[in-house]
Amino acid sequence: MLNQVNKQHIRVAQNASGRSMNVPVYHIKGQRPGPKVYIQSSIHGAEVQGNVVIYHLIQWLQTMPICGEIVLVPNCNPVGTNIKAGEYTLGRFDPVNGTNWNRGYYYDPEQIAAFVNTVTAEESVSSIKQRFRDHLRTAIANKLASPWGLGLAQQLNLRLQQLALDADFVLDLHNGPVSTRHIYIPEYARESARAFNFPHCIFIPNVFAGALDEATFCPWWTLTDSLNQRDNRDIDFGIEAFTLEMGSQEVIDFAEGEIDARSIISYLTVKGLLPESQVSPAVMDRIGVALKDYKTLFTSWGGMVEYCARPGQHVKQGELLARVLNIDELDNDKGSHDILAPCDLIPMLHFPSASVLSGTQLYKCFTEYYYLTRQQDT
Amino acid sequence: MLNQVNKQHIRVAQNASGRSMNVPVYHIKGQRPGPKVYIQSSIHGAEVQGNVVIYHLIQWLQTMPICGEIVLVPNCNPVGTNIKAGEYTLGRFDPVNGTNWNRGYYYDPEQIAAFVNTVTAEESVSSIKQRFRDHLRTAIANKLASPWGLGLAQQLNLRLQQLALDADFVLDLHNGPVSTRHIYIPEYARESARAFNFPHCIFIPNVFAGALDEATFCPWWTLTDSLNQRDNRDIDFGIEAFTLEMGSQEVIDFAEGEIDARSIISYLTVKGLLPESQVSPAVMDRIGVALKDYKTLFTSWGGMVEYCARPGQHVKQGELLARVLNIDELDNDKGSHDILAPCDLIPMLHFPSASVLSGTQLYKCFTEYYYLTRQQDT
Amino acid sequence: MLNQVNKQHIRVAQNASGRSMNVPVYHIKGQRPGPKVYIQSSIHGAEVQGNVVIYHLIQWLQTMPICGEIVLVPNCNPVGTNIKAGEYTLGRFDPVNGTNWNRGYYYDPEQIAAFVNTVTAEESVSSIKQRFRDHLRTAIANKLASPWGLGLAQQLNLRLQQLALDADFVLDLHNGPVSTRHIYIPEYARESARAFNFPHCIFIPNVFAGALDEATFCPWWTLTDSLNQRDNRDIDFGIEAFTLEMGSQEVIDFAEGEIDARSIISYLTVKGLLPESQVSPAVMDRIGVALKDYKTLFTSWGGMVEYCARPGQHVKQGELLARVLNIDELDNDKGSHDILAPCDLIPMLHFPSASVLSGTQLYKCFTEYYYLTRQQDT
Amino acid sequence: MLNQVNKQHIRVAQNASGRSMNVPVYHIKGQRPGPKVYIQSSIHGAEVQGNVVIYHLIQWLQTMPICGEIVLVPNCNPVGTNIKAGEYTLGRFDPVNGTNWNRGYYYDPEQIAAFVNTVTAEESVSSIKQRFRDHLRTAIANKLASPWGLGLAQQLNLRLQQLALDADFVLDLHNGPVSTRHIYIPEYARESARAFNFPHCIFIPNVFAGALDEATFCPWWTLTDSLNQRDNRDIDFGIEAFTLEMGSQEVIDFAEGEIDARSIISYLTVKGLLPESQVSPAVMDRIGVALKDYKTLFTSWGGMVEYCARPGQHVKQGELLARVLNIDELDNDKGSHDILAPCDLIPMLHFPSASVLSGTQLYKCFTEYYYLTRQQDT
Repeated sequence: MLNQVNKQHIRVAQNASGRSMNVPVYHIKGQRPGPKVYIQSSIHGAEVQGNVVIYHLIQWLQTMPICGEIVLVPNCNPVGTNIKAGEYTLGRFDPVNGTNWNRGYYYDPEQIAAFVNTVTAEESVSSIKQRFRDHLRTAIANKLASPWGLGLAQQLNLRLQQLALDADFVLDLHNGPVSTRHIYIPEYARESARAFNFPHCIFIPNVFAGALDEATFCPWWTLTDSLNQRDNRDIDFGIEAFTLEMGSQEVIDFAEGEIDARSIISYLTVKGLLPESQVSPAVMDRIGVALKDYKTLFTSWGGMVEYCARPGQHVKQGELLARVLNIDELDNDKGSHDILAPCDLIPMLHFPSASVLSGTQLYKCFTEYYYLTRQQDT
Repeated sequence: MLNQVNKQHIRVAQNASGRSMNVPVYHIKGQRPGPKVYIQSSIHGAEVQGNVVIYHLIQWLQTMPICGEIVLVPNCNPVGTNIKAGEYTLGRFDPVNGTNWNRGYYYDPEQIAAFVNTVTAEESVSSIKQRFRDHLRTAIANKLASPWGLGLAQQLNLRLQQLALDADFVLDLHNGPVSTRHIYIPEYARESARAFNFPHCIFIPNVFAGALDEATFCPWWTLTDSLNQRDNRDIDFGIEAFTLEMGSQEVIDFAEGEIDARSIISYLTVKGLLPESQVSPAVMDRIGVALKDYKTLFTSWGGMVEYCARPGQHVKQGELLARVLNIDELDNDKGSHDILAPCDLIPMLHFPSASVLSGTQLYKCFTEYYYLTRQQDT
Repeated sequence: MLNQVNKQHIRVAQNASGRSMNVPVYHIKGQRPGPKVYIQSSIHGAEVQGNVVIYHLIQWLQTMPICGEIVLVPNCNPVGTNIKAGEYTLGRFDPVNGTNWNRGYYYDPEQIAAFVNTVTAEESVSSIKQRFRDHLRTAIANKLASPWGLGLAQQLNLRLQQLALDADFVLDLHNGPVSTRHIYIPEYARESARAFNFPHCIFIPNVFAGALDEATFCPWWTLTDSLNQRDNRDIDFGIEAFTLEMGSQEVIDFAEGEIDARSIISYLTVKGLLPESQVSPAVMDRIGVALKDYKTLFTSWGGMVEYCARPGQHVKQGELLARVLNIDELDNDKGSHDILAPCDLIPMLHFPSASVLSGTQLYKCFTEYYYLTRQQDT
Repeated sequence: MLNQVNKQHIRVAQNASGRSMNVPVYHIKGQRPGPKVYIQSSIHGAEVQGNVVIYHLIQWLQTMPICGEIVLVPNCNPVGTNIKAGEYTLGRFDPVNGTNWNRGYYYDPEQIAAFVNTVTAEESVSSIKQRFRDHLRTAIANKLASPWGLGLAQQLNLRLQQLALDADFVLDLHNGPVSTRHIYIPEYARESARAFNFPHCIFIPNVFAGALDEATFCPWWTLTDSLNQRDNRDIDFGIEAFTLEMGSQEVIDFAEGEIDARSIISYLTVKGLLPESQVSPAVMDRIGVALKDYKTLFTSWGGMVEYCARPGQHVKQGELLARVLNIDELDNDKGSHDILAPCDLIPMLHFPSASVLSGTQLYKCFTEYYYLTRQQDT
């Protein structure tokens, strides 16, 4: 192997038997300096396919010349992965209190405002970058040292965020329920949409809702905007962070994992980490949407549902999305009820069970979407 | 419509708010006398596709001349269907105590032995049949009237069994986790395998394990054997009961439901209930197996699994069934582990989640199987 | 009976069988005009004791002269009450997605700011009150009519909020895990602490976190502050809302329910609804605390815990709160670990299970508390 | 310390992250030979108090002269202890398939019959004992080596049974839901009821239902009966096994644990393991009941329940056991419903949640009970 992999385990929790729950951290350091990359998977415990992607990445990265370093953290939430409820994995939230495992990362805009006051108009970008990282590192360490303790999800998130803190590029690998590939991209880094091979791209603004990608880019985005505005500078710290949604949860598929690993290799190549890589972004249709136009369709009916529209399918307004069976009216024409598309849309994902209560999130859909790249343009 | 459908609701439980939980009972009575059929679906709450099959059956049966009568009970377990645990339905067992919803039907071989003593060698088959039904009806009513009460699953089972009690043919509609079509058939009724369009047939002996099909045929089988042996008669009561496994749980699919409805119409036609029906059994491969050769493969590894063999696929001994990812060894050749077929087999179903503990039922498989019918024979 | 009780049921959800889930609404209208009161219980499904309190209230209110009217909604969350997971009730959050059932009420400060602009300095308080209620009513109705639908918890919350909308006094009846009586009171209504018989009172600022009490008082508080500041007026709309925590979840106790019903009757008497009531507030110790001083103690240890400090007990800094058993060290002096009070405190509640992961919320505690009233003062 | 404790960990399962789940095994060997004792706790994961009892036992046993040896296995089911569903522990059954964790031990009466054929009328008791243990050891090892694997609960049970196999006295420490102390005793060892300090004793016949105590004594009982009957001998192998129910689940209480540890020390003293122990059985009331008279009361009502009769309370026929609140009838005299004792009884335990569906096991009760010992007799 060209590159050595350094492997460690860090403790992120202790279970009710008093046993440690550990996360493996794989670290690959290139021969030459360059950017730092942080990749984690399975913060939502049932979204396991990212672990296969990391498996393939490690195979590849061991054999390629690297400028920079890459930290890979598969199965980063061992609590979530191991909560079975029936045959499936209850991986999205803490079963004790309902806390989403992906909402407890650190972001404090007031502290950033205070930090901005410490920066002079003359301070170099690299100095600001270093000091801001130290500032974030201290803030997270302080949180973790709180004398009254912290909730489990937040503890887990902060320990992972410590690993991601000095990365330039952060990739958080997720899956949808029943889903097609899509990626969340901060608006300021929209050019990076072309570096990955994701057919569906959601562009998100500088708003923090708790996830790792936001916790990574919001501080830098806010800092950049504040300084550039105040000092009329044109600083760009070059930090990017993404949430990659790679197909459906509860699935391991080695062949599909290779496709997504290739997509990430493509991004790393574009970013200069892999000087001899021959992998370039695919020539393909890429569709973009603003986060505000990425809409959730809730059912107002409870019942048993056939999902007629597939994730990725282009659906016209008024076309059939789903049919709800009505078990009390099987002998008449109310035996099933059609749910139609309220506008032109592309479903990204649908609920994974046929049995739904009213108010269930049936579909999440692109609306008002547009083409970023087209296959035939080339 | 040619036939009227009579619809009633029966109460099977009361929830923690004190509200009744009801089951719809559809009753279609033909113009002419004939056998009685009982069909229920979704005793396991996540196995919902049978409800669509009943939907299609009701559409068809409303328009066809019928000799006999048919009782159809969709969503027969409203408790099980409504237990969500995460996005999926925890439908196989009572979440309070783990009791399988399909194991509490009535069968008491000692009482049958006592009943046998009341039958003379001269009693007519129809008289025995009538008296035995009365005997079973009384026994179930007595159980339900127990002064100390009964558990929820058993109450539900017994109330459904009361509806099925005087049927000649009982069909219990199920689904597997991720599954291909298969059917459970009592050995004495093996000829009926040819009347359905199921590619995989499991033949079961006269052993009671708690399910509705067994609770239906075991009493008659035991009675028949006892009388025929004692009196050297050749009585055949003609009672048949089947468990039909129609694809995967958590899925509603109207088109697939039509295929299974057609298969049931074919059986009813063969049995003489539908004198003008043109539906005859398909010309197709049908594979049989003895229950003792229908084997469960448990994993001795915990981990994340790719299911490489599809349900229905013919797998040779030593071929790959599944791969287990090992997240602690992604940097070396122990990163994944292969699980191989211990003999020639056909998987009927596999576990629906990629995340498994050791001791999880990965696959259920036909071994030592044989062809009952072949497509090319015709 | 002196007063008639009007009883209706409203539909708040539809289950996976397509059946309606209904909530009973009891309405008692007095002989004379007066304030309107709204009381609900069990929005968290395992917190059932409020239903008994409402039972006692209805007995009493049927026989007492009333100025005004009272709406009582027991078991207001029939979804939450009916989710069993093992023997207990998973009532705090939607099992599908983890959403807390008490966080989806409507509050929109921007809309209030817009409403303020429609108020002239001369408009009468009663006119403002009426128009603001209409404004809120329309806003909630619009939300419920959203073309893409709404999540189940939010739908439920908004339908209940519609019932509470024109009440002057709103009481939301809750329980803690293992808990002593305490009550949440908006700071501006701190005098009302003396009208109830709660030994522990938490005073909360004008900050919305999603619960019904906040959703009730935050709009009026914000409106009041805006108008009084802008126009130098001294408006007081007189709207009050409280969350009452009446002992432990998973418990029904008719005798204890009478004590809490008496406490509420005392409040209604003080507020003038019950002109002939002899019930006056108890002479007792009442302890107050600011919300910021109501602290949660998380364990940094996973293990098996004895809760040594009782809810309501006064604990000095350094005294024993809990002991954690360490099953791997039973043969040496690390067999158990003590958790000590970080400061003087009074626990209000503790976690209800002995088995905890690290990061579990062990205790919620009053710190920096003070006496509002003392028994011996009188 | 007088006695050294040998501590090992054995692997009983592997979780979905591929990590081992281990059980601690404490082994204390006395200075002189004597019987072997096996004690385990928490096979049902929420029944944790036995771990405290083992903690106290280890403290005591380290300091007392011992004839024989004692193996103690706390937290013997690390899977069950760590399954949280909401705040509580779903510890009684495998959440994947509902399998009770205490029903998969090995017992095969046909194999025993075959073994009996290998015994001559002249073979010594000690030789039979040794050979029968070898026979059982081989049978369990063969089961565990099954080429198609085994389910998780059965694997766990068999690995524990291997540890218990050569013990003379086996104690399985459990708790009830909300419960008073009671103990299950095989009928042939009824004298041992006087050696423990349990106020309630259930005597069980030679019937196997899957639990560890039965799996321990049924083989020896069956063997004894077969040989004694066949050969007219009077063999007594002296093997005893008990299930001890020590109060309520979800509770750790160090002081109560000492009481139960003392009760076990008393038994060990009577059995000769602790030659210098001063601990003798308490002078107390002990009440006995036949297993057939230990009855479960199921509710035929769903609703919210106050448990009016305490575990251990003597209740006369017709007295109040429980009241069910009816939230739809709070304004009339059907607002609550009384459940009365169907005969004179003593409840041992009741359901731990106020919210129940119809068919819930409300109480388990002694009926037709009698006094084994009386406090005042002495």
